[in-house]
Amino acid sequence: MVQYQRNVDRAFAALGDPTRRAVLERLGSGRATISELAEPFGMSITGMRKHVRLLEEAELVTTEKVGRARMCTLVPYAFEGLSTWLQRLDRFAHVVERTKGAP
Amino acid sequence: MVQYQRNVDRAFAALGDPTRRAVLERLGSGRATISELAEPFGMSITGMRKHVRLLEEAELVTTEKVGRARMCTLVPYAFEGLSTWLQRLDRFAHVVERTKGAP
Repeated sequence: MVQYQRNVDRAFAALGDPTRRAVLERLGSGRATISELAEPFGMSITGMRKHVRLLEEAELVTTEKVGRARMCTLVPYAFEGLSTWLQRLDRFAHVVERTKGAP
Repeated sequence: MVQYQRNVDRAFAALGDPTRRAVLERLGSGRATISELAEPFGMSITGMRKHVRLLEEAELVTTEKVGRARMCTLVPYAFEGLSTWLQRLDRFAHVVERTKGAP
């Protein structure tokens, strides 16, 4: 449970950065190497490697060596739990909103 | 757009903490004052006020003065955009997974 909470902490913290979210969107259209990810952002490989490492530690992305490159892929199901939790909160928020005026 | 991105940054960063997530879950069952929120965590009012301020800056929670207390409420629709974005990524992750072996 503590481990799960820590993973959720890491996942949300990793998502709190626009470059990392853009990287995830890019990986949504297919796997990419770190240099392919770095290029459109005009970012150094080292800079992108740091972002990818955070996404990997958050278990949102996996990487594997392919020749001399490191290939990055989205982790299936990684986003499902987070999204379900947010949806539940959203439903609750509407119920609370509707009952706000009630005694 | 930049402002929207900043709000999303703040929202995800605010969610990256187990106490703040627990506060949101508690608010899912109804509005609560800062001291009502602090009590079950054995937390000082000052400590809880900081967490609530971050949730407020992330536009996930609103607060209003009610007598001498500050009442906290979940913001309806605040979680919907985040959840939709995560769901889309999850769908993409499955597509990428299925086509991984393809030439």
